[in-house]
Amino acid sequence: MNGLYDLGELETGQVEQLVARALALREGAKALRFEGRALGLLFFSPSLRTQASFQRGAAKLGLDLVQLQGGAGGVWGIETRSGAVMDGANAEHVREAAAVLGRFVDVLAVRAFAAGADLAHDRLDPMLDGFRRFSGVPVINMESANWHPCQALADWTTLDMLRVPRRAKLVLTWAWHPKPLPQAVPNSTLTMAAMRGMEVIVHRPRGYALAPEVMAQAQALAKSSGGSVRESESLDELQGAHVIYAKSWGSLERYGDAAGEAALRAPLRSWCVDESWMRRAGPQARFMHCLPVRRNVVVADEVLDGPRSVVIDQAENRLHAQTALLETVFAALPARTSPRTWSDTPTSEMELQR
Amino acid sequence: MNGLYDLGELETGQVEQLVARALALREGAKALRFEGRALGLLFFSPSLRTQASFQRGAAKLGLDLVQLQGGAGGVWGIETRSGAVMDGANAEHVREAAAVLGRFVDVLAVRAFAAGADLAHDRLDPMLDGFRRFSGVPVINMESANWHPCQALADWTTLDMLRVPRRAKLVLTWAWHPKPLPQAVPNSTLTMAAMRGMEVIVHRPRGYALAPEVMAQAQALAKSSGGSVRESESLDELQGAHVIYAKSWGSLERYGDAAGEAALRAPLRSWCVDESWMRRAGPQARFMHCLPVRRNVVVADEVLDGPRSVVIDQAENRLHAQTALLETVFAALPARTSPRTWSDTPTSEMELQR
Amino acid sequence: MNGLYDLGELETGQVEQLVARALALREGAKALRFEGRALGLLFFSPSLRTQASFQRGAAKLGLDLVQLQGGAGGVWGIETRSGAVMDGANAEHVREAAAVLGRFVDVLAVRAFAAGADLAHDRLDPMLDGFRRFSGVPVINMESANWHPCQALADWTTLDMLRVPRRAKLVLTWAWHPKPLPQAVPNSTLTMAAMRGMEVIVHRPRGYALAPEVMAQAQALAKSSGGSVRESESLDELQGAHVIYAKSWGSLERYGDAAGEAALRAPLRSWCVDESWMRRAGPQARFMHCLPVRRNVVVADEVLDGPRSVVIDQAENRLHAQTALLETVFAALPARTSPRTWSDTPTSEMELQR
Repeated sequence: MNGLYDLGELETGQVEQLVARALALREGAKALRFEGRALGLLFFSPSLRTQASFQRGAAKLGLDLVQLQGGAGGVWGIETRSGAVMDGANAEHVREAAAVLGRFVDVLAVRAFAAGADLAHDRLDPMLDGFRRFSGVPVINMESANWHPCQALADWTTLDMLRVPRRAKLVLTWAWHPKPLPQAVPNSTLTMAAMRGMEVIVHRPRGYALAPEVMAQAQALAKSSGGSVRESESLDELQGAHVIYAKSWGSLERYGDAAGEAALRAPLRSWCVDESWMRRAGPQARFMHCLPVRRNVVVADEVLDGPRSVVIDQAENRLHAQTALLETVFAALPARTSPRTWSDTPTSEMELQR
Repeated sequence: MNGLYDLGELETGQVEQLVARALALREGAKALRFEGRALGLLFFSPSLRTQASFQRGAAKLGLDLVQLQGGAGGVWGIETRSGAVMDGANAEHVREAAAVLGRFVDVLAVRAFAAGADLAHDRLDPMLDGFRRFSGVPVINMESANWHPCQALADWTTLDMLRVPRRAKLVLTWAWHPKPLPQAVPNSTLTMAAMRGMEVIVHRPRGYALAPEVMAQAQALAKSSGGSVRESESLDELQGAHVIYAKSWGSLERYGDAAGEAALRAPLRSWCVDESWMRRAGPQARFMHCLPVRRNVVVADEVLDGPRSVVIDQAENRLHAQTALLETVFAALPARTSPRTWSDTPTSEMELQR
Repeated sequence: MNGLYDLGELETGQVEQLVARALALREGAKALRFEGRALGLLFFSPSLRTQASFQRGAAKLGLDLVQLQGGAGGVWGIETRSGAVMDGANAEHVREAAAVLGRFVDVLAVRAFAAGADLAHDRLDPMLDGFRRFSGVPVINMESANWHPCQALADWTTLDMLRVPRRAKLVLTWAWHPKPLPQAVPNSTLTMAAMRGMEVIVHRPRGYALAPEVMAQAQALAKSSGGSVRESESLDELQGAHVIYAKSWGSLERYGDAAGEAALRAPLRSWCVDESWMRRAGPQARFMHCLPVRRNVVVADEVLDGPRSVVIDQAENRLHAQTALLETVFAALPARTSPRTWSDTPTSEMELQR
């Protein structure tokens, strides 16, 4: 496996193997060791679970760890636009940042959220794209503008751990939040559930549809897996759900338009998962969320602190799922080759792009 | 030992064992190794000695290290109030942050200074309290609103290293500083010296009394140990002191009142430990401070650079004392249990609070 | 070797040994292991290559790593002035910061750029100077106000790897940049090339001379090595160069004068290395830069992405050169001595300065 950008790029069988391995690691199986190999972690966005679980996972695998932070006190501001005349704030281009880090480590993991201003720009996932194109090593997406595949892998692990049937109903519900958040998590939850063969309902208010290309990929995955995907605004759809998966996200229709977004969501504060929602779903229903979660805004204390909530296990499974993923990625690395040799005369090939 | 919040919660014999072990480690004893176990470090406040000594201590013990920082570029803003409607700046509640990190590591160490605005709030030590209640693992206090037990442990180690008699006189003196600082260090110094059986004088201007509950605990400890605790404004009390321990702190009477505090301390700039203070104490006197220290504000260069100052040894002993503490805490961990099992049906117990 | 501040302080033979070792490490030689020894990294300035390569290098050598960051969320503000009355922003003096860290680790590496306001102050390199004087352990300069010896070591490694002749012509060319940058890199490039015996041209506009003492040292080094150093404003000097080494830096004449600097460089935007510059040099010419580099400002995409650019190899060689340097510094450490003993009576010696 050459890194991971979107869970949807894997075969179902590959995911099933990773999940099985994650569950074995959770039960105490020893992780493989890759002494002398190195993992680089690069964070351009805040993180608690991701930092902690990747740091610990790297230690379990015996990896050398390189960790860098964007922002003040960290790495230089990174330009991603091709052909840019870099006379602004950014001091380094992703081409160099990626190529250099690819010389220091064997695998890179990168977190870079959507900037939230320009949808066309964010859709291209420029930071992840840059690292994937220019680093020369496998890249793991620790949440980008578009996808959060490690969360999806942990969530599938959690569903299997809880013995939630493959065809069970999962309601991915929008929730109110003071800010328009990126869609990486709902995109990945939808993709995961569709691949797993679940009956997926995207429960969201008007104006909060997920991206058409994401929906289309999910439809195609559901078709292969025997699952289904549909959208609804109705709370009636909660009935019979095995999983209520809450997440807030911003409207694509009002992308980068703070005032328009605020107006659109102003009347939607009742979109908060409370016990009445869980009762509507039925006694079999579990509550899931990727965390961090705003209490009494996205979900009521009574649900989060109650027995239906499995959010802490979801988070724990980040560690196991990512350890399984790192094992697979490191095991697939080519043996160390002898270093590149140099002629005395420059050639015309674009050596930076090897 | 199940973590450490306040030195005063330990038995004197436990402290003596930790100090003896710290001195042995200082002399070159090999630390125990806990391969495959993990320590998490979480900093919400600045740190030099604490970060460096915990990082090094963890390495000496062979621990996996997870390190997280609050603030920009780090973890999410953390809410500590119970029942909060989280529609403000904080994106994550301490209940989830603690419970999640408790799944990734075996022991957590947390630094979170007093916010300094609301005394009632700070007295509750909300961040440390949250991590202790919700993480499910032992928590070590790396300086909270109220206590700095690792400093106290290092200071006791330093006193024993210097063969300062158990009944010797220690003057904990207030000093001027441009800002009202928290009381965690003076609280812990007082507690440590009282437990050790010393004759403790809290030398401070009017308006700068330590908290009554802290004084009361120190009085009780002194009674058990054969020591004594009293307060004084008089420089005459320095005479015969084996230790002048300087520290600045804010007035509890003007807590959160910046202008009132500034007015109260304006006439107190002469509260700076210089050679005249040390001469007054006598030739046996040592100068102690927890660092960082403001030169020529809290203490004169002549004292800090002179032979009476033992501040660098105090700091070095942070490493040895904390390594001894970590050894004890990790050695007391239960053997790894098999993972929690799951039924298919949610129960009514509050599983998050296990 | 007792740390490294400026490459010019080494003997040429020492540099040749380090470079040979760096090339061997690049070819896959195993690094020596120093288990139980510790390296401290302290960053007061941004970094990508330096952080990543020192983290990885430390892991290759089996070192315990202590890493600290200046600025928000990191260590305390550090005062460097002797005799300062510390009632301003800085909470800790470099004397204590250095002495304390020297107790926690065996070798310290520090990055602290020029502040850029006061030339006399920056010339003294106060942060590096403080750590070198007060830490009691070898200090490695990870780029200070004046020097970047690790970059110079990597660059010499790169030149040898590329089999660039010892007497080849190297043009160190100034380039336009939106901000006046420090001179640490051009100073070190000049020093390195002069020591290596190269024909060095400092190609820069009027007003952008390097410091006279740096030029003088380079002249002396060139005299010993059989090389030469001269300055020129003419593009004709590029002809026959084996290396075009680009770097922007600020004017010493307008130091700390933002408006004056901006006016001086306003007409100089054409100082950008493009294919016409490389053609002028000839087919043998390589393009070098320390990175980060501003594309289409300091150098055109066509050069950086073309076959003449060796910037990624330069960066990779940071790892190998520094690993060689760390090996040499750690191998030269004295065996661990028994700890300092203490008498009960203070003496008059300045113990802090041992």
